[in-house]
Amino acid sequence: MAAEFTKDLCTPAFTVDVDTVKRNARVMLERFEKLGVQLRPHMKTHKTVECADIMTGGARRCIVVSTLAEASFYADHGYDDILYAYPLPFDKVERCGQLAERLALFHVLVDNSAALEELKKRPLKQGKSWHVWMKLDCDNGRAGIPYSEPRALQLAKDIAATAGVNLTGVYAHCGNTYSCQGEEQIKAVAQETTTLTLQFMEKLKAAGIEGVKSSIGSTPSCSQPVPDMAMLSEVHPGNYVFYDVQQSLIGSCSLTDVAVRVLTRVIGHYPHRNQLLVDCGWTALSHDGGGKLPTGYAVIEGHPELKLLAMTQEHGRIEAVSGKLDFSKYPIGSMLSLMPYHACATAMMHPVYYVHSHGKIVGTWTPTRGW
Amino acid sequence: MAAEFTKDLCTPAFTVDVDTVKRNARVMLERFEKLGVQLRPHMKTHKTVECADIMTGGARRCIVVSTLAEASFYADHGYDDILYAYPLPFDKVERCGQLAERLALFHVLVDNSAALEELKKRPLKQGKSWHVWMKLDCDNGRAGIPYSEPRALQLAKDIAATAGVNLTGVYAHCGNTYSCQGEEQIKAVAQETTTLTLQFMEKLKAAGIEGVKSSIGSTPSCSQPVPDMAMLSEVHPGNYVFYDVQQSLIGSCSLTDVAVRVLTRVIGHYPHRNQLLVDCGWTALSHDGGGKLPTGYAVIEGHPELKLLAMTQEHGRIEAVSGKLDFSKYPIGSMLSLMPYHACATAMMHPVYYVHSHGKIVGTWTPTRGW
Repeated sequence: MAAEFTKDLCTPAFTVDVDTVKRNARVMLERFEKLGVQLRPHMKTHKTVECADIMTGGARRCIVVSTLAEASFYADHGYDDILYAYPLPFDKVERCGQLAERLALFHVLVDNSAALEELKKRPLKQGKSWHVWMKLDCDNGRAGIPYSEPRALQLAKDIAATAGVNLTGVYAHCGNTYSCQGEEQIKAVAQETTTLTLQFMEKLKAAGIEGVKSSIGSTPSCSQPVPDMAMLSEVHPGNYVFYDVQQSLIGSCSLTDVAVRVLTRVIGHYPHRNQLLVDCGWTALSHDGGGKLPTGYAVIEGHPELKLLAMTQEHGRIEAVSGKLDFSKYPIGSMLSLMPYHACATAMMHPVYYVHSHGKIVGTWTPTRGW
Repeated sequence: MAAEFTKDLCTPAFTVDVDTVKRNARVMLERFEKLGVQLRPHMKTHKTVECADIMTGGARRCIVVSTLAEASFYADHGYDDILYAYPLPFDKVERCGQLAERLALFHVLVDNSAALEELKKRPLKQGKSWHVWMKLDCDNGRAGIPYSEPRALQLAKDIAATAGVNLTGVYAHCGNTYSCQGEEQIKAVAQETTTLTLQFMEKLKAAGIEGVKSSIGSTPSCSQPVPDMAMLSEVHPGNYVFYDVQQSLIGSCSLTDVAVRVLTRVIGHYPHRNQLLVDCGWTALSHDGGGKLPTGYAVIEGHPELKLLAMTQEHGRIEAVSGKLDFSKYPIGSMLSLMPYHACATAMMHPVYYVHSHGKIVGTWTPTRGW
């Protein structure tokens, strides 16, 4: 990362290697094309049009979003077939209804019967029906009805039986892959989530409910898929387009697949406490990861001897992993390149991303924010 | 916080009680007016024009900023006498020079001789001189030359002796007040920082350097000042305009002084694991504080029985502090009001703040972002 372009960037700066982004996107597209499974990439990590174009192979169709602001943003940029994969928030039903009436396909997600009642109260115009995915919890422990509870099947039946509402799919997030270490553990969770989801699909069929899609996701499971995932309709990973240190530790990728950095400059030498200061605080990196890496809050590229010990709003304190710092190696004004622990959290802190290719800045991407 | 306006807000929403903001600002202005010390409020917490107007009592003069983006933003809105209280970053000297040429008073901060060399290389036009504050470290341990080191006085002398550069002030941040608990401990740190700063001012005088200002700051020290602070020229607190749970635990304020909230709605009931989900993830609250409060990542207003246990990007998991949750008390779609652990970190996550007074929304504030 001693690329020529870095010297002209004001720091802290969030940089995106667009060639790595394209490779990550292509690998995921090809992997699931081979498996015959629709990739519905998640936009939450980057929230930009440019990166969405890369992830969808230019199709501008079939995406997942985490906020309604993202859904509106992508709709405004010509995207369609958008799945708002979030437990239907009752304050946003009207805005969801307007998007559903405006787009060819806008999907919402439901995991409780009160949400179904909200949809009934807001029938769509133009004879349209709500496209509803039911969230199933396959041992992840966040949103969704646990697969093992009878009320999961009951809710699916209720959705399917409701006028003006279609049961379009069953959606499971295997966020429990984030506690895995290595391919074997990831594949075990991917297999379990796939099996439980497919078993639920069988229950639906047995209940006479046909034509319902199935989708599971998480970057680890989709980076290390199991063959049974070919029996799913869709998958919905998101982080893979950037990857990060966390994903490399889980076993989703290697560090060479990480497309993003925070560039930061040395702003002070404090030999009396064996520390450098850099111009990267939590406003530029986030506190995600809690500083538990051997190198603290990030991996400092090319400098395994350094640790990002702590951050305040605009300052980062760097010390030696062991022994005394050789300050002459890090002159004030010189650049360091941080590989983020969690790319989603770091990208979120930046109003603009600096995009580079082959050592040159080729543009900027501006994410959408808010809800 | 069952105010009428809340029901119409989409969540998560960052709300500001403007009456509390005005009270916090007035108390601080009056406190230091009585002491005969200039209040130079810090903008880093909110980064809005509206709140800056309140903090400066409408003067639009004499502020501190943490980023050059803030400096430019305030200059663009008619502010002047702006102190960029950050170790001069070498990539931003040209932008600093332009601001110094454009404004009546634009101050930079320096804590090393390499930075002074950078200023020499960029003389100001129109016969202007750089206004430089020297950062002194009075046992805080972040930026600044330690007060006890001979090179501190040497740097001050070098700044004062440099053509085209004025030594305008000495600046100390007593961030070490953040590890205090209670008035007595805060006052001890405030006293120590004041004493060390004033001793340094005496050394300057003894060296024949006169007319240099002195400033210390931090919200705890300025909320619990010691009489000797009357001998300083300025103080520079910032967070006090919002306050937060952290400040109440330190002893800077009571919880009734906290002006900001994150409003969030219940989006799911998960009785099998005794948890609620709310629509507030780390994108709306930040991970600041590390979840170490007895009530987790925030104080849930009016609900001491609840704990914000964990957050992912857009989901917050709430459990009972002890025993079983009575889910009927928190219907899906109902609102909870979170008091942030660290208002600076939470405000940073929001592209817009919803401002209310006497139970009604009276406007929105839009902060500046970036560097």
